[in-house]
Amino acid sequence: MSNPNPSSPFASSEVEMPIGNARLRGVSTSLDTNGIRGQFPGLTPGWHYLDTAATAQKPQAVIDATVNAMGRNYATVHRGVYARSADMTLAYEAARRRIAGFIGAKEEQIAFVRGATEAINLVAYSHPKKGRVLLSVLEHHSNIVPWQLAGWQVDVCPLTADGCIDLDAAEKLLTPEHNMVAFAHVSNVLGSPLDVARAAELAHRVGAELLVDGCQAVPRLPVDVAALGCDYYVFSGHKLYGPTGVGVLWSDKLDTLPPWQGGGSMIDRVTFAKTTYAPAPTRFEAGTPAIVEAIGLAAAVDYVEAIGIDAIHAHECALVGSVREQLARKNSITLFGPENSAGIVSFAMAGVHPHDIGTILDESGVAIRAGHHCAQPLMEHLGVAATARASFGVYSNDDDVAALIDGLARVERIFG
Amino acid sequence: MSNPNPSSPFASSEVEMPIGNARLRGVSTSLDTNGIRGQFPGLTPGWHYLDTAATAQKPQAVIDATVNAMGRNYATVHRGVYARSADMTLAYEAARRRIAGFIGAKEEQIAFVRGATEAINLVAYSHPKKGRVLLSVLEHHSNIVPWQLAGWQVDVCPLTADGCIDLDAAEKLLTPEHNMVAFAHVSNVLGSPLDVARAAELAHRVGAELLVDGCQAVPRLPVDVAALGCDYYVFSGHKLYGPTGVGVLWSDKLDTLPPWQGGGSMIDRVTFAKTTYAPAPTRFEAGTPAIVEAIGLAAAVDYVEAIGIDAIHAHECALVGSVREQLARKNSITLFGPENSAGIVSFAMAGVHPHDIGTILDESGVAIRAGHHCAQPLMEHLGVAATARASFGVYSNDDDVAALIDGLARVERIFG
Repeated sequence: MSNPNPSSPFASSEVEMPIGNARLRGVSTSLDTNGIRGQFPGLTPGWHYLDTAATAQKPQAVIDATVNAMGRNYATVHRGVYARSADMTLAYEAARRRIAGFIGAKEEQIAFVRGATEAINLVAYSHPKKGRVLLSVLEHHSNIVPWQLAGWQVDVCPLTADGCIDLDAAEKLLTPEHNMVAFAHVSNVLGSPLDVARAAELAHRVGAELLVDGCQAVPRLPVDVAALGCDYYVFSGHKLYGPTGVGVLWSDKLDTLPPWQGGGSMIDRVTFAKTTYAPAPTRFEAGTPAIVEAIGLAAAVDYVEAIGIDAIHAHECALVGSVREQLARKNSITLFGPENSAGIVSFAMAGVHPHDIGTILDESGVAIRAGHHCAQPLMEHLGVAATARASFGVYSNDDDVAALIDGLARVERIFG
Repeated sequence: MSNPNPSSPFASSEVEMPIGNARLRGVSTSLDTNGIRGQFPGLTPGWHYLDTAATAQKPQAVIDATVNAMGRNYATVHRGVYARSADMTLAYEAARRRIAGFIGAKEEQIAFVRGATEAINLVAYSHPKKGRVLLSVLEHHSNIVPWQLAGWQVDVCPLTADGCIDLDAAEKLLTPEHNMVAFAHVSNVLGSPLDVARAAELAHRVGAELLVDGCQAVPRLPVDVAALGCDYYVFSGHKLYGPTGVGVLWSDKLDTLPPWQGGGSMIDRVTFAKTTYAPAPTRFEAGTPAIVEAIGLAAAVDYVEAIGIDAIHAHECALVGSVREQLARKNSITLFGPENSAGIVSFAMAGVHPHDIGTILDESGVAIRAGHHCAQPLMEHLGVAATARASFGVYSNDDDVAALIDGLARVERIFG
């Protein structure tokens, strides 16, 4: 694949990188991370940010789009008869179109929500066939608790030995009584990628639908919802280099969902006797939306596409490969998750609590995450209270990896 | 009252201004709107923005706080073991404290939500005594539809002749079967202020609770939730000169509400068999919150307090008084709402559709709202399909009023 954008700050070459169960013809892993890092004001010199799976830093282009949308272009959407509001409506709907295009969707299939969490709650609460859902052991709490709170009966799919959702087991577990399967596309702890197409096929075979939590996948892998064959796909803006306060619910069957949150804009006609509702996706956007944030997210998509999601994926796979290789040589380290982890490495160090690892690394300017990562059932499965997690983004580089490895050597010295 | 902040851009003097049913000793109405307008990049020269009730323009201080929070200070909250995340958590919780203080609340009584709409949906859906609610004819759809969708039985309180919620009628309508009363503090169409203390007393007398939609009040009136005596108070950040994508649910009984949306951060312990939840307000903040937006909203509160909410209220009352007086002299104009409207004037012009008024005014650079204002039951009550609405903010001035009046004269000439 040749460089689709000659002005983007990376050099192109041909490499093959593993991706999930397939192999992808990727572009160069040699992103110009120095150039890229200069575009992220959050990446202060000497700081090694390895918590991108929690939230991504924002490029200046996203900040600039936010400033313009909050400032000289600011107005509300959908209701104004004046030009500025009409322009803002065009910008908001263009953002929807832009983001839809990024994941191979049509614009009317995209509802803007507060984040992936709200998206899953929306489906769990509003689904007309609220019944039995199959989750997996590695799900984030945001893909467990909404189903519990909304009253679904929850079944649990186990993992393979290397920490992937075991689709052979899923096949055996699924029955015609299941209405829904809800799996992470990429585990936020282990980086394990899911074969979404096969999961969709298994779900559909028993008459269930498939919801995919794409929070960790959308910033890391090419995602084409039409090709994946799932029924719902959700992700958060702030993990895709975009603003906080906005996320996306995609579905090609949004129109089958009844409204959930009520309020302005989502109605057709309101009376105290009977209210009727707008078609999807408007029906799911009650109240003044996160206008500025949606526009900021579209700018983030522009940024990612200018570099190329294939290139970002290849780059992160190379970094993960390097870290895993170096950590595997340390006797004190236990590595979790599969070899083909997408951008995320979880590990434990014998005799050292992950929080102590995190604290000591912080003294060296290395920011990792330590904890249960909102995945307590997975921690229980792994037999640990917490893991240490390093996660990568478009701006991560070999210096970050070196600082992590050096910092872990220091942890080993301190704990003897 | 002397000027509490000598550096704020207004001159102090003593005046008395009407506020709701009481009279408030306000500060000067002579805000230095030229100085103030220079702080709002959205207020481009020659543009008369009279749609602040839909959404307020943002001062540079809010934009700067947003840029810093998205940029050099950016990290997630609550979970990081590294210093940047700890600092961001402090900033996020300081924002909660700041905003709580602004409305006379304690910080643990404030939950950050997507906006007032989500706040009302949260209460409507999660309330343990979901039963019978008394609303009023003038409510915004965001204070009607959530109750309908969540399955409450809705009763309706009529209005007085001048367009205020008729509390004498409410007193007669309320029965011990009512669990909730939900009223707007200030009507988004008419500007009608509510005597919240009396409404609370009436609700409590029958054992019901009072939820107050404060979207239009918080930017326009001094609000002290402890003194008002209500049980829930909600507002949106973007109408208070803050960012989109964030709002506030206040209650001194948040701990009595069960969780609604599930996800990360709002839990105590997650297992597939049984999940337990964090105390309020954390329990209501599932997922990564609108971190940047909450910090931006605190900056907006700083901005408003530096000028003084009393001064803003007096200023808007003066502008409304001027507009109402000039419109009352025109035979073609019907004015809606009470004399003591807070910052909002709705009107009709004989023989001219409000949308045509809005479109012609737009050609003169005057941005008003025309439509049902998400209050279709009120439109039906007024016997109109729509109204024209001019609404004011801290930056509105006599030039805006003059441009509105001149523009309406042009509308009259065009429609002869």
